[in-house]
Amino acid sequence: MYSNVRIVMMYTSHPGNIGAVARAMKNMGLGELCLVSPKSFPDIVAERRAAGAKDILADAKVVETFDEALEGCVAVVGASARGRKIPWPVMNPRDCAKKVREFALLPKTGSDQENQNKVAIVFGREDRGLTNDELQRCNYHVHIPTNPDYGSLNVAMALQVVAYELRMDYLLYSGLGDATQAAPTLSPENDGWDEALATSDEVEGLIGHLEAVMIKTEFFDPENPRQLIPRLRRLFQRSRMDKIEVNIMRGFLNTVLKAIKDKC
Amino acid sequence: MYSNVRIVMMYTSHPGNIGAVARAMKNMGLGELCLVSPKSFPDIVAERRAAGAKDILADAKVVETFDEALEGCVAVVGASARGRKIPWPVMNPRDCAKKVREFALLPKTGSDQENQNKVAIVFGREDRGLTNDELQRCNYHVHIPTNPDYGSLNVAMALQVVAYELRMDYLLYSGLGDATQAAPTLSPENDGWDEALATSDEVEGLIGHLEAVMIKTEFFDPENPRQLIPRLRRLFQRSRMDKIEVNIMRGFLNTVLKAIKDKC
Repeated sequence: MYSNVRIVMMYTSHPGNIGAVARAMKNMGLGELCLVSPKSFPDIVAERRAAGAKDILADAKVVETFDEALEGCVAVVGASARGRKIPWPVMNPRDCAKKVREFALLPKTGSDQENQNKVAIVFGREDRGLTNDELQRCNYHVHIPTNPDYGSLNVAMALQVVAYELRMDYLLYSGLGDATQAAPTLSPENDGWDEALATSDEVEGLIGHLEAVMIKTEFFDPENPRQLIPRLRRLFQRSRMDKIEVNIMRGFLNTVLKAIKDKC
Repeated sequence: MYSNVRIVMMYTSHPGNIGAVARAMKNMGLGELCLVSPKSFPDIVAERRAAGAKDILADAKVVETFDEALEGCVAVVGASARGRKIPWPVMNPRDCAKKVREFALLPKTGSDQENQNKVAIVFGREDRGLTNDELQRCNYHVHIPTNPDYGSLNVAMALQVVAYELRMDYLLYSGLGDATQAAPTLSPENDGWDEALATSDEVEGLIGHLEAVMIKTEFFDPENPRQLIPRLRRLFQRSRMDKIEVNIMRGFLNTVLKAIKDKC
């Protein structure tokens, strides 16, 4: 995961939101949290909401001013609702993740490489977000595209979305083993299925078997075929069956034949 | 925004999570919420957390069973953590949004157009998500790529991420203009298929029917189920059957039963 991200929460009123942010950060692989003058911290409510992410709270840095929170950062991204007086460079969360990555990939020099190319992503107060002064301290704004009729996103939810995009970008971009987590749809045609794909002739064998049993039970009349067999073929060939599925269906058809015969 | 989405919450313990989900839904432009046996609803805690989204709570449908929640849906997506015994078609939230869009763009016929092509997105209990049985009722699973060391995502956070991707996809896609889209693979999910998609409960009816006949012919021993029924469910739910295919298979199963009975 990108290690050059510092999450900053400004003047947070409700400790539950700090806990929820810590949990969401750890879920998405982020670690560095900085709190600017939180109303109550540490707080048992925050710890309860953090669940298994109490380590993020324990490591969180508490400072008094915005300036202190931004110390050492090469870029500052402020979370913003729409409609500020002065237009500012604004990104959606996906582009924000790309921007963070660009900074993460910058070359590092000297001894303290861990803290280089650090980007602060800043979230404002629960009731009114960041002030205009604070937003103008930011290099970029990140805006989550909400419903225009109801755009008031909870601060932890906003962090969750931004952090999710950071993780998706990291997984998709890094192409590491980890990237399978953001992999495409799993189906028998992809790596990761538990059984081998049936071959086309194995599926055809099943369809022939099914046709024979359908004739035997008088469900299918070859004199009046209509589109029955093409429809079955379309269904089973489309499904990309695996070998065990073919075996199950054929085993079942054998017991049907046997049940009919035994009763004769 | 796509109007063919129904959010389903299963056996939710904490009313606060229901409220947070309602708020996140409205933020992202979703409207339809179905609650399966919530522990406490309506509840003042839910209303407080919902903030300006109390209308979503007021309109929420409360039902007792999973089956009722899925009524009329043509596809079911279950939110899932990793590591289930049987791999299932699994998508990340971005691909999930694309899949929902594909259904949303299917042609609609008849009088009740509003409720056509409905996709249920299902979220499980706070403590352990969806059960294996519930997951096997789904056509697809959606997995949010979390930190492997700490993957326990709060249910409202998970909904927020999935709903955010729905909104992003909607915004990006509607801006593109659909004429530029390449022709997709033809399947019952696409325009141009000759029969209407079977609903989730119609496919479930077929699976139950098949199970009964398999017991009758002694192919299936419920005392020793192994993974037989989940495998059948995976096959038929994955295939996105159309209505006539379900009817053919059920008609066939009826003649099997009759053939066995007649010979007695």
